[in-house]
Amino acid sequence: MASPPNTAPLASNPAALIAEMAARARNAQKTLAALGSDSKAAALHGAADRIMASEAAILSANAKDCSEAEKAGLSPAMIDRLKLSTERLTSIAAAVRAVAELPDPVGQIIDTSQRPNGMVLGRVRIPIGLLGIIYESRPNVTADAAALCVRSGNAVILRGGSEAVESNRAIHAAFVEGLEASGISADAVQLVPTQDRAAVGAMLSASGLIDMIIPRGGKGLVARVQADARVPVLAHLDGICHTYIHEAADAAMAAEIALNAKMRRTGICGAMETLLLDARFPQATEVVGTLLEAGCELRGDARAQALDGRIVAAMPEDWDTEYLDPILAVKVVDGPAEAIAHIDRHSSGHTDAIVTGDSAVAEAFLAQVDSAIVMHNASSQFADGGEFGLGAEIGIATGRLHARGPVALEGLTTYKWQVRGTGQIRPA
Amino acid sequence: MASPPNTAPLASNPAALIAEMAARARNAQKTLAALGSDSKAAALHGAADRIMASEAAILSANAKDCSEAEKAGLSPAMIDRLKLSTERLTSIAAAVRAVAELPDPVGQIIDTSQRPNGMVLGRVRIPIGLLGIIYESRPNVTADAAALCVRSGNAVILRGGSEAVESNRAIHAAFVEGLEASGISADAVQLVPTQDRAAVGAMLSASGLIDMIIPRGGKGLVARVQADARVPVLAHLDGICHTYIHEAADAAMAAEIALNAKMRRTGICGAMETLLLDARFPQATEVVGTLLEAGCELRGDARAQALDGRIVAAMPEDWDTEYLDPILAVKVVDGPAEAIAHIDRHSSGHTDAIVTGDSAVAEAFLAQVDSAIVMHNASSQFADGGEFGLGAEIGIATGRLHARGPVALEGLTTYKWQVRGTGQIRPA
Repeated sequence: MASPPNTAPLASNPAALIAEMAARARNAQKTLAALGSDSKAAALHGAADRIMASEAAILSANAKDCSEAEKAGLSPAMIDRLKLSTERLTSIAAAVRAVAELPDPVGQIIDTSQRPNGMVLGRVRIPIGLLGIIYESRPNVTADAAALCVRSGNAVILRGGSEAVESNRAIHAAFVEGLEASGISADAVQLVPTQDRAAVGAMLSASGLIDMIIPRGGKGLVARVQADARVPVLAHLDGICHTYIHEAADAAMAAEIALNAKMRRTGICGAMETLLLDARFPQATEVVGTLLEAGCELRGDARAQALDGRIVAAMPEDWDTEYLDPILAVKVVDGPAEAIAHIDRHSSGHTDAIVTGDSAVAEAFLAQVDSAIVMHNASSQFADGGEFGLGAEIGIATGRLHARGPVALEGLTTYKWQVRGTGQIRPA
Repeated sequence: MASPPNTAPLASNPAALIAEMAARARNAQKTLAALGSDSKAAALHGAADRIMASEAAILSANAKDCSEAEKAGLSPAMIDRLKLSTERLTSIAAAVRAVAELPDPVGQIIDTSQRPNGMVLGRVRIPIGLLGIIYESRPNVTADAAALCVRSGNAVILRGGSEAVESNRAIHAAFVEGLEASGISADAVQLVPTQDRAAVGAMLSASGLIDMIIPRGGKGLVARVQADARVPVLAHLDGICHTYIHEAADAAMAAEIALNAKMRRTGICGAMETLLLDARFPQATEVVGTLLEAGCELRGDARAQALDGRIVAAMPEDWDTEYLDPILAVKVVDGPAEAIAHIDRHSSGHTDAIVTGDSAVAEAFLAQVDSAIVMHNASSQFADGGEFGLGAEIGIATGRLHARGPVALEGLTTYKWQVRGTGQIRPA
């Protein structure tokens, strides 16, 4: 395994540690940015090879993490998230190979124009530079995030959760060994060598050193990052997603979409958390019945409760709650305007959907609802980079600048203007 | 004139004042976002009409500002920037009309795709939302910035400099009167009613209320905004622009571009501040001679000084100085690698140029230099939204995210994903 640089003397000064890591990363990024698509792909396949070749070391490191987690009394669900196996490691390597084969956005020409004086202007995609990824217990993020960064020509500083510290070190060591075999410096993909929480603080305030931070994990992590960061953050905090069933919805489609949007997986950010039923939709009772029979708890306003005796009363906070569980808030609304007003007030700006057979109403909804993803006649559970055809996903963004919705490679790039002249000077 | 809303009770609590203004602005923005191109254009022509119709009131307000400025001992240059005339007011109205006629980016489809399951995905441009513009003494910014915001469907909170307080109020009152005549609420374009500096602080920390801040003014203002803002900032701090004359440069072109890049206007952000001369460029003496004879002070390293006895010695800080004056730092470098390394270290990431007849060297320079604008065989003084064909400019951005280089309407938009389905649900 590649020996990590000796940063031990810096560990007691997190700001100096991050500054030193960032300086090395920025230097390595210059070389990475200049590499062609094929070289980056080859390096990623090399990293995947090394991950598979290091199976014994990685699984042994992971066993240590799992044993520590058991001692610490972590929940079975958390230990399952942490645990690696030959099968999971094979998936991790396969995901790295899949990213290697994605179209490379770097060097793409966004647009070009020619000025009357003959100058040719073009905007070309370039890597953002140095990214910081802060994540929790899933060790696969170490390889996934590193692969997306390398493919898009970015250097990255990774900071994983303390539960997965040994697993992350082993995966990272294998990954950069693969990069180095292709001539890419290990400085391009660095793992913070300390679990001191002050190192996270140092990353968040590394304005001018780190160009963008991406937190991947639970709400506590994302909220802290968004509150404390001086560096731009790409993330979403909540996925409070709505589905509005309009009066002209097909009844079977409405029931099927509602069921899928809520119950396919209740724990993902694209899961529906509030169902808005139009008062004129004739089959509202059937839709709520389908959900109740699937084992979903419904919490409704008075008009929703009138549809079915099993619906309990919603409290005001239910309209602003991301359950991530088989619980759903249900409200009856009088038409699209009230539905949109409710979404406008309570949506987290992630994904909101309408089900209707009336295309004018659908288009108005798609135009007026201001969330990162707006949908017509589809399940909000599709809100995912893979499902959107991006090939992967580093996260979903609900901010308004740079990138919105599922973010994969393009969202990890920016652009510069290239101007090609023949001696033009600007007239007075 | 439209009477401004009564915010007097809030003036003593800047955070509450900004929150209240932002709430009204966000509300008005929803209507503005839904307007078609023609309606927004008509409203802007209406605003231009009202500016011209309010000439007497605006010039009288401006006379008060100028008289206060004289009493306060402001420099003639600053008073000139402040001063309005019939001619200048006509230009201000004409600029508003020009923005009204620019292509509307809102509603543009960035890209579309269809998934194998039949869902159609499209990314559509939408306004960012609510912008904050913080500016200094030029009262024309009130109308310019407001016009760009309205054209792109954004609401705006304007905070002008105290020197121009009366002028800004009069221009703003006329502008929103024009909007209101077209049915757009005056809440869409608001002027902060107090010159209390705490109001600026409240704007900068209005995270979640204001979506983006654009400072327009001198370095002191931009530096303060960048240091204190919790809201994303679109700006550039310095324009430390380089021109590298490669050995294969045409001598006449090199002299002409260097002269124009430095001396056309020395006070603009795209003016060259450092000239890098290749040691193998045979006519370096002629190029520095041209600059010296045009009245430019040259500060060089030892090798540059050897070219001409009139070149004074550069101090280390000269390589990091934005002179905005007829002063230029000059360094002799050994080839493109040294030139790029110097730019990498000292450029502010605004605009950097190469002059060469060797297209391979030029392309390598355009690829490797990481500034917002990179140029081949053209004067860096072209770094301007108008010159780039954008029709206007709200500023130049040197950050790495969202928008880089000259920013006009497109940079004031973001996008959302619209998904059109026919009942698709996500498989388990």
